[in-house]
Amino acid sequence: MMYNTSAGIVPGKINVHLVPHSHDDVGWLKTVDQYYVGSNNSIQVACVQNVLDSLIPALVADKNRKFIYVEQAITHGFFALLSFDFLLEINGGMCMHDEAAPHYIDMIDQTTLGHRYIKEQFNVTPRIGWQIDPFGHSAVQAYLLSAEVGFDFLFFARIDYQDRAKRINEKTLEVVWRASKSLGSSAQIMTGISPKNYEPPSDNFYFEVGDTSPIVQDDMNLFDYNVPERVNDFVSAAIAQANITRTNHIMWTMGTDFKYQYAHTWFRQMDKFIHYVNQDGRVNALYSTPSMYIDAKYAANESWPLKTDDFFPYADRENAYWTGYFTSRPALKGYVRTMSAYYLAARQLEFFKGRNEVGLSTDSLADALALVQHHDAVSGTEKQHVADDYAKRLSIGYTEAEKCPLLNISYCPPSEVDLSSGKSLVVVVYNPLGWKREDIIRIPVINENVTVKDSKGKVIESQLLPLLKDSMSLRNSYSTAYLGKSTNVTPSYWLAFSASVPPLGFNTYIISSAKQAASHSGMRTVYKSQISQNDTIEVGPGNLKLLYSGKRAKLMRYINSKTSVNKLLEQSYIYYRGDDGSKDLQVTRVYKGKDHAEIEFTVGPIPIDDGIGKEVVTQITSNMISNKTFYTDSSGRDFIERIRDYRKDWNLEVNQPIAGNYYPVNLGIYMKDNSSELSILVDRSVGGSSIADGQLELMLHRRLVADDNRGVSEALNETVCVFDKCEGLTIIGKYYLRIDPVGEAAKWRRSFGQEIYSPFLLAFTEQDGDHWANSHLATYSAMDTTYVLPDNVALITLQELDSGKVLLRLAHLYEIEEDTDLSVMSSVELKKVFPKKKISKVTEMNLSANQERAVMEKKRLVWRVEGSSKEQPTAVRGSPVDPAKLVVELAPMEIRTFVIEFYSERGSFSDALYRRSNLRRKATFSLP
Amino acid sequence: MMYNTSAGIVPGKINVHLVPHSHDDVGWLKTVDQYYVGSNNSIQVACVQNVLDSLIPALVADKNRKFIYVEQAITHGFFALLSFDFLLEINGGMCMHDEAAPHYIDMIDQTTLGHRYIKEQFNVTPRIGWQIDPFGHSAVQAYLLSAEVGFDFLFFARIDYQDRAKRINEKTLEVVWRASKSLGSSAQIMTGISPKNYEPPSDNFYFEVGDTSPIVQDDMNLFDYNVPERVNDFVSAAIAQANITRTNHIMWTMGTDFKYQYAHTWFRQMDKFIHYVNQDGRVNALYSTPSMYIDAKYAANESWPLKTDDFFPYADRENAYWTGYFTSRPALKGYVRTMSAYYLAARQLEFFKGRNEVGLSTDSLADALALVQHHDAVSGTEKQHVADDYAKRLSIGYTEAEKCPLLNISYCPPSEVDLSSGKSLVVVVYNPLGWKREDIIRIPVINENVTVKDSKGKVIESQLLPLLKDSMSLRNSYSTAYLGKSTNVTPSYWLAFSASVPPLGFNTYIISSAKQAASHSGMRTVYKSQISQNDTIEVGPGNLKLLYSGKRAKLMRYINSKTSVNKLLEQSYIYYRGDDGSKDLQVTRVYKGKDHAEIEFTVGPIPIDDGIGKEVVTQITSNMISNKTFYTDSSGRDFIERIRDYRKDWNLEVNQPIAGNYYPVNLGIYMKDNSSELSILVDRSVGGSSIADGQLELMLHRRLVADDNRGVSEALNETVCVFDKCEGLTIIGKYYLRIDPVGEAAKWRRSFGQEIYSPFLLAFTEQDGDHWANSHLATYSAMDTTYVLPDNVALITLQELDSGKVLLRLAHLYEIEEDTDLSVMSSVELKKVFPKKKISKVTEMNLSANQERAVMEKKRLVWRVEGSSKEQPTAVRGSPVDPAKLVVELAPMEIRTFVIEFYSERGSFSDALYRRSNLRRKATFSLP
Repeated sequence: MMYNTSAGIVPGKINVHLVPHSHDDVGWLKTVDQYYVGSNNSIQVACVQNVLDSLIPALVADKNRKFIYVEQAITHGFFALLSFDFLLEINGGMCMHDEAAPHYIDMIDQTTLGHRYIKEQFNVTPRIGWQIDPFGHSAVQAYLLSAEVGFDFLFFARIDYQDRAKRINEKTLEVVWRASKSLGSSAQIMTGISPKNYEPPSDNFYFEVGDTSPIVQDDMNLFDYNVPERVNDFVSAAIAQANITRTNHIMWTMGTDFKYQYAHTWFRQMDKFIHYVNQDGRVNALYSTPSMYIDAKYAANESWPLKTDDFFPYADRENAYWTGYFTSRPALKGYVRTMSAYYLAARQLEFFKGRNEVGLSTDSLADALALVQHHDAVSGTEKQHVADDYAKRLSIGYTEAEKCPLLNISYCPPSEVDLSSGKSLVVVVYNPLGWKREDIIRIPVINENVTVKDSKGKVIESQLLPLLKDSMSLRNSYSTAYLGKSTNVTPSYWLAFSASVPPLGFNTYIISSAKQAASHSGMRTVYKSQISQNDTIEVGPGNLKLLYSGKRAKLMRYINSKTSVNKLLEQSYIYYRGDDGSKDLQVTRVYKGKDHAEIEFTVGPIPIDDGIGKEVVTQITSNMISNKTFYTDSSGRDFIERIRDYRKDWNLEVNQPIAGNYYPVNLGIYMKDNSSELSILVDRSVGGSSIADGQLELMLHRRLVADDNRGVSEALNETVCVFDKCEGLTIIGKYYLRIDPVGEAAKWRRSFGQEIYSPFLLAFTEQDGDHWANSHLATYSAMDTTYVLPDNVALITLQELDSGKVLLRLAHLYEIEEDTDLSVMSSVELKKVFPKKKISKVTEMNLSANQERAVMEKKRLVWRVEGSSKEQPTAVRGSPVDPAKLVVELAPMEIRTFVIEFYSERGSFSDALYRRSNLRRKATFSLP
Repeated sequence: MMYNTSAGIVPGKINVHLVPHSHDDVGWLKTVDQYYVGSNNSIQVACVQNVLDSLIPALVADKNRKFIYVEQAITHGFFALLSFDFLLEINGGMCMHDEAAPHYIDMIDQTTLGHRYIKEQFNVTPRIGWQIDPFGHSAVQAYLLSAEVGFDFLFFARIDYQDRAKRINEKTLEVVWRASKSLGSSAQIMTGISPKNYEPPSDNFYFEVGDTSPIVQDDMNLFDYNVPERVNDFVSAAIAQANITRTNHIMWTMGTDFKYQYAHTWFRQMDKFIHYVNQDGRVNALYSTPSMYIDAKYAANESWPLKTDDFFPYADRENAYWTGYFTSRPALKGYVRTMSAYYLAARQLEFFKGRNEVGLSTDSLADALALVQHHDAVSGTEKQHVADDYAKRLSIGYTEAEKCPLLNISYCPPSEVDLSSGKSLVVVVYNPLGWKREDIIRIPVINENVTVKDSKGKVIESQLLPLLKDSMSLRNSYSTAYLGKSTNVTPSYWLAFSASVPPLGFNTYIISSAKQAASHSGMRTVYKSQISQNDTIEVGPGNLKLLYSGKRAKLMRYINSKTSVNKLLEQSYIYYRGDDGSKDLQVTRVYKGKDHAEIEFTVGPIPIDDGIGKEVVTQITSNMISNKTFYTDSSGRDFIERIRDYRKDWNLEVNQPIAGNYYPVNLGIYMKDNSSELSILVDRSVGGSSIADGQLELMLHRRLVADDNRGVSEALNETVCVFDKCEGLTIIGKYYLRIDPVGEAAKWRRSFGQEIYSPFLLAFTEQDGDHWANSHLATYSAMDTTYVLPDNVALITLQELDSGKVLLRLAHLYEIEEDTDLSVMSSVELKKVFPKKKISKVTEMNLSANQERAVMEKKRLVWRVEGSSKEQPTAVRGSPVDPAKLVVELAPMEIRTFVIEFYSERGSFSDALYRRSNLRRKATFSLP
């Protein structure tokens, strides 16, 4: 029997857009490769090859059929076989990235990777943001990764159950989301929220092999003919959804993750539904896509409610907040952040050297990093073996990148070389930021008697800090666990010195054996402190002093003599869900010239002998009058105001006063009162909150003994095993704390925040005598030596494309009204950024660089918003780049993306570094 | 990547024949239609449409791929789309019939239906018996439904675990099975038994969507590349199987029931195995079929062990005999037998009338009957709702057949018409046997004052027997349960009279109101008995007397004055697995002129209030010295010697002394000693045994409270519900008992056995006055009126084919040496069987009538048997039919099948019956 599936939209009827779809997580319960080939089915029956193999014949068999697919990373280019554009119209990134744990730079990178791949391979530009699965939705996803990418529609499924109930009730599941204060309506996105989830509208419309929904039995010759019943089911479900939806278009998401393993089973039933439902005539059913759906919505010329801010946190039902994952797997989250920084810098170096010369060295890391932005990767919501797989991929990517001679490092062995034999250690310090920069470098060394010279041969101040026994034993056991060997050379000290490096450039330091026995004299340790009469310890070499109570060893007072900030502070660790036996392994560092405290914490193994899982939290308590209000960043970018026990969009019923007030923190969290702002910045993605006025807290680590019944079927219980002995994973991390006078804190948060994201990159080599120093350039900047980027602008992408062109992304770091001086239009002189090259052409692109910005803006749909009062003045944006002046203007929060072409050959950076080829193999770059 | 799947057989290597297969039960946990369309998946994930739909592209994609398929009934002719002969090479029946519960005539019919369909549609003649799933294997399956059908190979999987262990040990899993004493080597079949089951050789080679076997991961670009490991797995499994197999050919059954729902998943992996295993080279892997396999075996010219008798009973492990199902669902088994009889007779009538004239009236019943021979249908091993579906199909088939004017009956209402108004009831009694026959007819009537006249108008002796109250209440409640209404007219009596009917013909009796009030005088009731002084009741009007003890109401003594048999006998009911509270609802009937006792039992509802399931058994106990030995029929045909606690083929370890001694009984069971034989014949398939010397027993009914863990997930607990009130199903049935002098019992077992299988068929109509009698032929025989078939020959098929030809099957009823007089060559004169037609051509066919017998014999493979002493003299068989004489010779146990063509138009039977068309609608045939 042939079914008539040719239905299009029918005006005046309820149009049921059947959107066949699946998203095949690039890792969750199984690894991405296991999902692809279909192995490890005892964990989950999922084989993406089956989906792909069965999809083609199903689509070829009937051209009316549609299918949409996300998570390109898993398809291995399979769709190259096809000419079905609709397959690729959604997302187009390598994965459906998470929206809580990834940093916006990583989100941009993974989306760009996918978008450019699809554009090059298939000449398709995705139109739809399809974030159906992430567990909450960020403002950055809306305005940056949707509107700025050029999407016409953003669709997702998971929002707070209370929010959804209200939206269903008020027909506000579809909204115009204006997520950026700074960019306003210029970066808003039409957004749809599913009335239930991303699956078919009721339990009755699932048609995977093995599903139990009643099939349409339309063979009169067999028993159980059920066409009338099934048509009624369909019409009822359609009317129910139409009743809570504006316009007469509704979308049914026909599928769920890892479905269509035998695609035919779905299409056979949908064919029948379309045929018989349209014969029935009460509603109109059609094969559709989100594009067709949103175009129909647009044509309806309806007005839509406005939505601002974001959709965090997410509870799927009462007492079920998905906020623990903001912190889950802190080691993986830390590793991802470290690799992101490395990738950003490595691309710069790769560009300087020339991709053709070094090979595709960063591609593997690019792929791995794209993969781990997935909503079950860096999120920490995957099974342990899958988390291990991600770490392995990052490690392999890192190793591949290492093959580039510039980046050849591993586990710092050179710095542990015995220098007593007369050799010296050359440390090349690379600064990937566009600003000149000074920072402390710490290197583990064996010898006591060492000196540090700068690139001019002058001995500079350095310090030897004893390595803590705990750190040493942790280092030894973890190297045994992960490398299979313990280190045969054990460093005894941290050698610390201050390095000063030009923007996009390097400086060189030489560490060598001192002639006489080392003395600690003349070195000022950060541990130097004064014990006062009332049992108080004072710490701090510069403006900032921290006063500790000696007895309780908890921070008691924060004093900055320069800014006149003087605040009582208490820092403590607590456990949620268990006893609160404090963990106090932390080291607090206060550096001269740095007006913040660096707190390095070591948390773990978290004890679970009592059978109770625990979540370790650090609390910073002040007497500030914060009035329930605090601020957290959105994916590392905009700060959003949070009010405890309150939601802007609905009247919150509070049932989990802690979990329900947690938010993702990628950059930092702060609170303020009339006089000051207390800011904390983080070294990785964590969860944070302010559970009491005057207090901020971060969840640093968690170890659970029970599964949360959300599908993983595994408790989050990370362990480290040395041979057969396993114990809970220990996390070492840092956060940074500072108190500023009110209104003056943004500068630190933005500038230092960027430094945290992009630390110095270190390269090591050895030399006999002065060999290296004589043969190499000791200091260098890729930019004009007289030029640095403005303080409010960061260079977030500098990457040579396969075509030899360069992808450049510049980001204004400040929101409107965030800082009196820096929330202003700024400009970057491209000629000075590329002083040794001649720019032939600058093309401004959309954020993901798969289309020209002008083209994107021209296509943009303009949606009507309910209530004229909500219209904003047009946002300020930088002007188009004058091809003669080549100056890029950046308005607050603006990110501009360019493809730049040059006349000349590339510059001399690599030549400078490698005057003699026989030294190339020894050049290494390390992670601090 | 393309895989090389073109491997053929490689001499000198172990050849692993990968045989992709599935068998899709035509009902088991779901109904056949549910399996086909894939509904009711919550019970079992199975959709045959998926198998069929996905198979085509998979086979088309690579012509080296193979697939074999059984159970034609479910394919709905789907394979018409294909030209792959190998798909159809196995079985070819409408189902994979059971081998315990079906009667051989039903097995022949269902196989013929499938074979002729396949022959006509695809011109394919199946070569392989593929009985992989039935729970034990009958001799009749081997010699009749395999060898006589023309198969070259019979393969199955289920044999006793002890038997299998020995065969594995001795390399005797492949045998020449010579199952018929009478036909010997002329009807032997090469037989293969799987070393494990009908699935892949280890848990590691299952590739259904959702299976967990490791797939072959051969993509070097992904993690977990495992080609070497998987090749090793394959080679190891191959060598292990080769070590227990003769010749270097082994077969892997790649599939199981309801697999290949997405066929691609299996073929993709097998492609890889064939490719990489052959690259490895240690063994040779190839796509194959059972035909290719057995041809390779044959080419090896090996000698094979001999196997006789059968493979019953079957235990899959210790304490797990599959013998209860011999009796499971006795109502369904009884219904099947009743419908079989009806179908046999209906085809005769259809032929007499002419198929063109009556339409395809018996086709639906033919389909239904074929379906219920399935190994999860009449076997009773299906879920309750599936059993209900089978019954429904039989009922529909019966109703369809009723549309034929000759067969229009239902639920006997005409006989319950009030005759006091002057109407009379015409009873046309049809005899489907080739012998003249007298039998008692019992009809429920309302009126007391009735007389019965024969076709000549002469009043004949009749009896009024009061209907037992229990029977009446059962009848009322069951008619309410199944018809939704209670009967508004309640008969009070059985009217019994003796009818005498010519072979393949009818006689007419008229029942009318008697002038005077009815009297019971002159009627001899079967209940008439004499109570002697010592509390004994004597029953029996003729030679046979049964003496009962009045107190215990158990049969005590059996006396036949003619044969001088005088035996102590005790009959009792017991429960297995529970208390043995006797059920004594039975009626024992002894008819004048019949030297056997007819025992009608009513068993149920079996009480389970105590939480214990029970199996109700009738035991007949004598003092015969039976020496552990008894005999049961094989599928209603050959009798096989059974010895308690003993198996011919291995040294039995007895762990279930009752279940392990049960055998299927379709025709009868008997035992003997030096002087006499005690035989019991049954009205349906049951289980039987002799657990103690001198004793025979039949299991009549069973009701269980727990599932047996063999997949059904449902206790066998049949209930009947009137409105909301349910109680255990009550079974009414009969068995027949007789004691003969030793050596003289076969005649009764064979002749009366045939009468049980083919009872009189009754048609009813009403008439006013003598209307009918005057307008219709009152008595008739289709055969020459001077002719009857020989006593040792039964006409088991007489069916008009679509082509207008006639299918005739004649069966010799006796084995060699079974009866002094009747185990001899016999002959049938076809001219006298069809006296009113002129035969133009007689073509002898194989048993299933899909090829000429001579062609089949010519193709037959001749297998070498180990040990020359086991060679037998060639069996005696009838000669080819002389086209002039048209006499069919039949040797003992021979069944000969003919397609007969006629010159003339068909005869006048229907014309005789219907002289006036206005009466047609009232002609009805009923089941007694």
